[in-house]
Amino acid sequence: MQDEAKMTDSTAYAYPLLIKQLLLTPFAQAQDQEIVYRGQLRMTYATLRERIGRLANGLSQLGVRHGSTVGVMDWDSHRYLECYFAVPMMGAVLQTVNVRLSPAEIAYTINHAGAEVLLVHTDFLPVVEAIKDKLETVRAFIWIDEPGSVAGAHSIPFSAEYEAMLAANSASYAFPDFDENTRATTFYTTGTTGLPKGVYFTHRQLVLHTITLMAALASPVSGQRFHRGDVYMPLTPMFHVHAWGMPYIATVLGVKQVYPGRYQPDRLARLVRDEGVTFSHCVGTILHMLLMCEEAKATDLSKWKIVIGGGALPQGLAQAAVDRGIDVFAGYGMSETCPVLSLAQLPPGAEALGADEQLRLRCKAGLPVPLVDLRVVDESMGDLAHDGKASGEIVARAPWLTQGYLNNPEASQQLWAGGYLHTQDIASIDATGNVQITDRLKDVIKSGGEWVSSLEIENLISQYEGVSEVAVIGIKDDKWGERPVALVVLEEGAAVTEEDIKQHVLSFSTSGKISKYAVPQIVKFVDEIGKTSVGKINKKSLREQFA
Amino acid sequence: MQDEAKMTDSTAYAYPLLIKQLLLTPFAQAQDQEIVYRGQLRMTYATLRERIGRLANGLSQLGVRHGSTVGVMDWDSHRYLECYFAVPMMGAVLQTVNVRLSPAEIAYTINHAGAEVLLVHTDFLPVVEAIKDKLETVRAFIWIDEPGSVAGAHSIPFSAEYEAMLAANSASYAFPDFDENTRATTFYTTGTTGLPKGVYFTHRQLVLHTITLMAALASPVSGQRFHRGDVYMPLTPMFHVHAWGMPYIATVLGVKQVYPGRYQPDRLARLVRDEGVTFSHCVGTILHMLLMCEEAKATDLSKWKIVIGGGALPQGLAQAAVDRGIDVFAGYGMSETCPVLSLAQLPPGAEALGADEQLRLRCKAGLPVPLVDLRVVDESMGDLAHDGKASGEIVARAPWLTQGYLNNPEASQQLWAGGYLHTQDIASIDATGNVQITDRLKDVIKSGGEWVSSLEIENLISQYEGVSEVAVIGIKDDKWGERPVALVVLEEGAAVTEEDIKQHVLSFSTSGKISKYAVPQIVKFVDEIGKTSVGKINKKSLREQFA
Repeated sequence: MQDEAKMTDSTAYAYPLLIKQLLLTPFAQAQDQEIVYRGQLRMTYATLRERIGRLANGLSQLGVRHGSTVGVMDWDSHRYLECYFAVPMMGAVLQTVNVRLSPAEIAYTINHAGAEVLLVHTDFLPVVEAIKDKLETVRAFIWIDEPGSVAGAHSIPFSAEYEAMLAANSASYAFPDFDENTRATTFYTTGTTGLPKGVYFTHRQLVLHTITLMAALASPVSGQRFHRGDVYMPLTPMFHVHAWGMPYIATVLGVKQVYPGRYQPDRLARLVRDEGVTFSHCVGTILHMLLMCEEAKATDLSKWKIVIGGGALPQGLAQAAVDRGIDVFAGYGMSETCPVLSLAQLPPGAEALGADEQLRLRCKAGLPVPLVDLRVVDESMGDLAHDGKASGEIVARAPWLTQGYLNNPEASQQLWAGGYLHTQDIASIDATGNVQITDRLKDVIKSGGEWVSSLEIENLISQYEGVSEVAVIGIKDDKWGERPVALVVLEEGAAVTEEDIKQHVLSFSTSGKISKYAVPQIVKFVDEIGKTSVGKINKKSLREQFA
Repeated sequence: MQDEAKMTDSTAYAYPLLIKQLLLTPFAQAQDQEIVYRGQLRMTYATLRERIGRLANGLSQLGVRHGSTVGVMDWDSHRYLECYFAVPMMGAVLQTVNVRLSPAEIAYTINHAGAEVLLVHTDFLPVVEAIKDKLETVRAFIWIDEPGSVAGAHSIPFSAEYEAMLAANSASYAFPDFDENTRATTFYTTGTTGLPKGVYFTHRQLVLHTITLMAALASPVSGQRFHRGDVYMPLTPMFHVHAWGMPYIATVLGVKQVYPGRYQPDRLARLVRDEGVTFSHCVGTILHMLLMCEEAKATDLSKWKIVIGGGALPQGLAQAAVDRGIDVFAGYGMSETCPVLSLAQLPPGAEALGADEQLRLRCKAGLPVPLVDLRVVDESMGDLAHDGKASGEIVARAPWLTQGYLNNPEASQQLWAGGYLHTQDIASIDATGNVQITDRLKDVIKSGGEWVSSLEIENLISQYEGVSEVAVIGIKDDKWGERPVALVVLEEGAAVTEEDIKQHVLSFSTSGKISKYAVPQIVKFVDEIGKTSVGKINKKSLREQFA
């Protein structure tokens, strides 16, 4: 029989999962490793350790306590990395403010999260100046005075400047133990409907996401994706789902880290070359932009591994990356899921599959990572066959999913209906466990009584010579219910006609690979395709525009 | 402010860490992957899934409930793997009985653990026959009737035979959710003093050990150590610390697994060759035995990776393995630590270090794995300098250390004195975080007022041409306190004298690399060196023998 008395959690052996433990091994094993900011500033992990202590002491003096919330408005930087650790390690909550929202939305999120201290980079002084009278909870502002940036006139009552504050404080701070279910971070989703919704994650969740994702990224048969010999640079903003948690993994691995500041394609390409970057992650549009820039054309990208998430990886884009020697592969998840649920992987013996099949595998949502219970279900939560065809909504459980939306019980209950988190993504699973997203629940096109996958049509069109970007939406049709419309951005000088595109899609319909309803009713050539604040195609706005 | 109401653990999003979750991804992604027993029996992961359900239903019928303990006496097999999952997933405790203990000790451990059901392989019928009247808690026996094994006369009242029981039961079993701090496994350490002591691990601990070790094994710069393309075979018995937790990792990875039954060197070598084994783990003596066997000499071992633990990896043995093309490296831990605390790793740029330094790095206890808080301390628990010289006891915290010894509060309190688990291993840490074990607290030799490392002398002697095995112990000396004595097994036909060995060690003393007290007083050539039940050199018994 079990001796339950021995199972209590209050004795010497108790070991809550806390973010500070992620630092144990890198600080002992990688003290001299570099962290680089914009190619201009270099520091070591030993310095990072000291600066985390100095930051905690500085925030403490400004009244930050267990349970306080600290907001950050900065570009991707070593400072942000310091906040990723120092703030939650104090027992406080880090709000990574989405700086691409409108000023009114930014004010809403800061108030809703209840941030008491706000760190502001010079570039965001105008925004904060505009909203400062609306901020209800902020008691203290800290200025991040970027060398080279010029601060215009403003009336923000700063309590401290970041570097001066660090210099004035001791590096020694005894980060306490506390309950692993303490909230560590909060940020706001950029849903296209209604007000932004706050998601939040605990220490336990972030530690489990970090270690499990580290295992999943390192162990595929097709080569290690992220290991101790890599050089890391995020290309997903650090305000967005902790840059997919990758800075935490990079730190545990003790690798060289490169933070690029504000994203400018030529600078990013230069950093990849000059700092020897080998591992990044971004949305497809950033990769597309980067491949197009002049600096990238003159750079050897063949040692670069990139995870693409935040939307589908179109095969056309994947091919362009593979052509440059990039090891590109998709990941799948969302803000609510911390974010990673699955990663594309090539199976043992992938060499024998041929280039086309390999490319298709790179573009799938891929294989759920360990501990993830990912199901594709029908409307009554019944499991669909794993035949690569039956499609339904993805629902999931995992040890790192948001417990709900902050102070929004109604939306939280909907999110967790039936004990599983509802992703609103439509997908199929095949016999090898590979997940293929076919659409967002809201973006799916119902034509002629069939579901047509907008992602599948985009995939086909993206591979047509001369096509640079494409978005497919459904518009109302009296006869068919809905019909697909393709919005296409052409490469400079490409001579492609509406009929070319239609014939291209039709050829796949004729061969039986897709439904005839998938052939776009209209192909419209446009100069650009509207994106959300995190670079996703904004289909809701496109539908309104072309209604 | 934190909304503490949202942090409770009783709602839809709650996700306790349970062993059953380790099966989520392999059962979806590796259904057709093989599990092989002795090269004779082959089954798939899909069959493993069914058999785990059948086993749980069978055990249920025999009265196994949440909190029951089930003991297993078997060689390394697919059946053992089934028990690793089915028993804890029911909420019961798996006791992996150490079959190398004496019958009286085996009876003691089964009674102490309170096993209610006992699974017994034919080979262990004589042992169980001898002790069955002493077993106080066992209510039901299950016979594992190995094809080809012959059961002699016995009077054990078996309730079932393993395969017949599985065949008679349904594959469908709804494994429940429960508290992640529920005990999952128990087994008994083979300490050389007093009665065996029980250590135990919870679901949470085994899941965290599995995922973290998986990340650590996959992410070193010097090539993936364990990944989806590997073929796994344990060479550490499955009764001993869950074969270091590796069968759990192998299953999460979804790799081909090979279980060898009873260890016979020629059969093991044949399995490596015929099944394409690429990843194993064992104590040094097993590797030594394997390299010596005829079958291994005719086998290409150059794709094999082996972790050596349960004692130091002598450089002589490591060199012999490297000469055969084996990627051999040390790991460090003990029964009380689940077991892994650290793994030897080559750093980025190791190629430039030269063969000797690489070999030394392979033999170190290496780098603590993520989440492990490993310290080397003096007698008042003060941290020693990370200078590669200062040596003291290793103490540790990690999310997977035993909470104590089962029903032994006194020993448990000693184990966890000061809030850290005391390993009784003496070590130093260098500036790169590398841990180097110099001795067991009990084995250290105090000579001429200095601490002499028995492991260091063994290391030097192991590299002398013609030496097959070596053990160094301290014997009492009126003048010096203690003096080292070396017991040496020579390779067949080697012409090595006592003076050769002494001169060899003396040369390192003359060059200042070791103390002059390290030169053995006596070198004694012996036919074999006594081992404990798990293959470690039994220094306590050697000391008694040569006192």
